[in-house]
Amino acid sequence: MRNLRFRIAYNGAGYHGWQVQQNAITVQKIVQDRVERLFGRRLDVVGCSRTDTGVHAREFYFHMLTDSAIPCRNIVLAMNSTLPDDVAVLNCDEVPLSFHARYSCIGKEYVYQIWNATHHNPFLRQMAYHYPYPLNEERIAAALPYFLGRHDFTSFCSIRSDVEDKNRTITKAEFRREGNMALFTFRGNGFLYNMVRIMVGTLLFVSEGKILPEKVEWIIQEKNRELAGKTAPARGLYLNRVFYEEGEFDGRKS
Amino acid sequence: MRNLRFRIAYNGAGYHGWQVQQNAITVQKIVQDRVERLFGRRLDVVGCSRTDTGVHAREFYFHMLTDSAIPCRNIVLAMNSTLPDDVAVLNCDEVPLSFHARYSCIGKEYVYQIWNATHHNPFLRQMAYHYPYPLNEERIAAALPYFLGRHDFTSFCSIRSDVEDKNRTITKAEFRREGNMALFTFRGNGFLYNMVRIMVGTLLFVSEGKILPEKVEWIIQEKNRELAGKTAPARGLYLNRVFYEEGEFDGRKS
Repeated sequence: MRNLRFRIAYNGAGYHGWQVQQNAITVQKIVQDRVERLFGRRLDVVGCSRTDTGVHAREFYFHMLTDSAIPCRNIVLAMNSTLPDDVAVLNCDEVPLSFHARYSCIGKEYVYQIWNATHHNPFLRQMAYHYPYPLNEERIAAALPYFLGRHDFTSFCSIRSDVEDKNRTITKAEFRREGNMALFTFRGNGFLYNMVRIMVGTLLFVSEGKILPEKVEWIIQEKNRELAGKTAPARGLYLNRVFYEEGEFDGRKS
Repeated sequence: MRNLRFRIAYNGAGYHGWQVQQNAITVQKIVQDRVERLFGRRLDVVGCSRTDTGVHAREFYFHMLTDSAIPCRNIVLAMNSTLPDDVAVLNCDEVPLSFHARYSCIGKEYVYQIWNATHHNPFLRQMAYHYPYPLNEERIAAALPYFLGRHDFTSFCSIRSDVEDKNRTITKAEFRREGNMALFTFRGNGFLYNMVRIMVGTLLFVSEGKILPEKVEWIIQEKNRELAGKTAPARGLYLNRVFYEEGEFDGRKS
């Protein structure tokens, strides 16, 4: 038996997220169809994460067990030749049977892209959130460090979530500009439902002066979703990296 | 009477080019509708160029005459609030009545984007041509200079063109890489129908060894479309800059 790990990228605009659902097109469904066609039998693929409708992934992993001997290189070529143009297999490798795309994952990095100009960008439809107002970088920089460390992030979690333990550790919370593109990066050992989108929505309120930067500490402590900002739109969110090795996650290895 | 010059950008994926046609959605039609709605009367907008189905524009100009006194800034905001997300007005300014978007144009720059990796890029659907084979930069660099200068470019013009004078002057013909993206840039005083796409298709044949770099000179001299390479797909082509001032076109002013 072989355990195959796939690294893929997808444009989430056309999908109801990763996870298979009744009556909805999901990335898992598309990928599973192709895998089953290639290996000629019913198979289960296990993803590293659920992602929401419209959210993108520059890097996403899934694994599957098979007794087929098809070389990884050929699997990648065969998959890419039949996948739609919004999903691509970047790599496939054989991993120990103990590897699990979700449970072996020790951290993730998300990037939120904001197109920050008066006019919208015709080349970034559904690929960034168009926010036409000036961003106050000083206020944002003052608020970001409050997210770092281990906290109960109930205030930054959709009330529709049924996860019990809402403690997560954030190890990176950064903001940078590249021309008209404003980018938020968050790295952590795990993220709650809508967590990055609510953090970004809150930071936009901070930028606008609706929430003082130092209030973010209090919002976290209060464990009350209503105190945080709006949930920023899915189209700006990218799962950017997924970590399985300590050295990569904490930066000892790049 | 005021002569208004608009600078716009558009994603060509959803359009049959710029020029109004029967039974086809074009950028001109979309823009003209919005302009007529805003000014409350029938108006003609005149573009700097035709563009083909699926071709993009990072910069495209049109002009229109009006006796309305609406300030340019307000026109831009009003237009952008009703335009679809694949067309944006970048600027509007008042120019002399003698200005004509097409006849005043002294040069254009096109960029052709090739996504050059084994896998396709889910974030560049219809925005680049996916070419998965290695590019031979040495051969391409050896062929490019033959395009420079004034030539009859019949060999690099669609046989469906009815233009009589096929002489054009190319002042820039460059290739560069940015990671997996390979970019061709051509600047000239004018371009024939499909000219950039045929030049790129020919350079891909040069890269593949199907045409020797020095053969490009002969292909130009022969004035025979059949000797050049295939017409590269529209989705990689961007009208990148449009020049109205000598100093900008020849680089004396950037």
